[in-house]
Amino acid sequence: MNKIAIIGLGLIGGSLALSLRKAGFYVVGIARRGETVEKAKNSGAIDEGSCDIKDISDADFVFICTPISLIIPILKETTPYLKKGAIVSDVGSTKQEIVSQAEKLMPKGRYFVGGHPMTGKEKVKFEEAEDGLFKDKIWMLIKTSKTRTNAISRLENIILTTGAKILYLDPKKHDLVVAAISHMPLAVAVSLINTVESQTEKTLMLYCAASGFRDTTRIASGDPLLGVDMFMTNKKAVLRMIKAFKVSLATLEKLIKKEEIDAVKKELERAKTARDGSPS
Amino acid sequence: MNKIAIIGLGLIGGSLALSLRKAGFYVVGIARRGETVEKAKNSGAIDEGSCDIKDISDADFVFICTPISLIIPILKETTPYLKKGAIVSDVGSTKQEIVSQAEKLMPKGRYFVGGHPMTGKEKVKFEEAEDGLFKDKIWMLIKTSKTRTNAISRLENIILTTGAKILYLDPKKHDLVVAAISHMPLAVAVSLINTVESQTEKTLMLYCAASGFRDTTRIASGDPLLGVDMFMTNKKAVLRMIKAFKVSLATLEKLIKKEEIDAVKKELERAKTARDGSPS
Repeated sequence: MNKIAIIGLGLIGGSLALSLRKAGFYVVGIARRGETVEKAKNSGAIDEGSCDIKDISDADFVFICTPISLIIPILKETTPYLKKGAIVSDVGSTKQEIVSQAEKLMPKGRYFVGGHPMTGKEKVKFEEAEDGLFKDKIWMLIKTSKTRTNAISRLENIILTTGAKILYLDPKKHDLVVAAISHMPLAVAVSLINTVESQTEKTLMLYCAASGFRDTTRIASGDPLLGVDMFMTNKKAVLRMIKAFKVSLATLEKLIKKEEIDAVKKELERAKTARDGSPS
Repeated sequence: MNKIAIIGLGLIGGSLALSLRKAGFYVVGIARRGETVEKAKNSGAIDEGSCDIKDISDADFVFICTPISLIIPILKETTPYLKKGAIVSDVGSTKQEIVSQAEKLMPKGRYFVGGHPMTGKEKVKFEEAEDGLFKDKIWMLIKTSKTRTNAISRLENIILTTGAKILYLDPKKHDLVVAAISHMPLAVAVSLINTVESQTEKTLMLYCAASGFRDTTRIASGDPLLGVDMFMTNKKAVLRMIKAFKVSLATLEKLIKKEEIDAVKKELERAKTARDGSPS
């Protein structure tokens, strides 16, 4: 039976552990804090657990489920202990930097395939983990010129048991897509809240904010450190998308200013059509 | 017993009818289309209904629950038939223009008090109506130098039966608050979708969009005509808030560009604190 090690037992790592263990795999959980390992054990998410990275040494698959900025440092700690044929993946939301560094770091006969499940919650601790987190969600896997076909198909078989839908992308396209639908929207949501927070009437405004405002700004309640990582490791694509967004907003602003009612209506209709047509 | 007429039986008018009828009032529903009146009757939202505005003539309270652009035209049709002492209110999401015009239109002995319940859904037809729509939501009432204290307190008693919390604002402050937390965010959400919709990779991007993106852009799925009304009747405050938003986004953009990690983190933390601290 395949043995799977999961490093990092937060929302994503914890949910992956629960899901893979439910699918029948033997799951080893590694976390920095013993308390987290205990919680994961007690809730049945892992078969065994420890705080020692060496314990990945007999795993066939290793998932690094830490924040982006720790993925490469953790991978460096891991490589000396990887068994022959082991496949390592990650769940970071930017891929160009991580995949190119990771591929260089892998010892002979061990393989890295970058991954990114498109799911999440505002809270990212183990307590939020659930085995169904990946069901019907997109799990992006990154193909490069160095990716081994065999490693991809083995990894795919594991991931499919979570109920996720796999989508293959190259690292650059991945980062642009994610900048457009995740990182730039975070910058926008943060700016939206901070705009209100800068007003003299901020207390009244935040008191009055209804569900629409709360939806629009939900992603700004995520962990700030994760946001910083996203912006910094995907800077180029994020800035490109912010620039595109500014053009789009300036267009609408100008039309409102000039009271070009038909054109304003068209912008609203274009947005509604695109959103209503996208999968829910 | 107080007789209440509701003109316009969409999401808001229909929900108000259901809620007030449940509270024991006699509710007369007026809609443009006979089909809507029938639906409202069959679902028990109204005691009687018609397509004839004259049928408000023995109502103690008249709620105009039409889109913003129809409120004043409908009020003009209504005034000849208002009985002495009748109180008219509306539910439009901008108030300066509506309240100033409405106050001028009211015949002697009839009173107008502008209102705005802070609730809604993406879909705005009668089919979406529910009696609990206003429960625990803020219902703004507008006080001006012309507002009669007696009219306000009578209206308040009616509205409180819906479970809403009443908040008094002057028209200018109302429109600024709503521009900040509703109209400008709509412009932002629309621009966000349209940014993605303008990309070469739009199909892939929209396919990959996860719940975060869907939340951020939810309000852009609303009725485009309502959006146009909001922007046009609250133009000055909307433009002011868009300008403030652009400053906020440009600040974050610059910090990302310069990789000022601590300052980026502070912006994210400020947003999270403001959002987490506001009522859910």
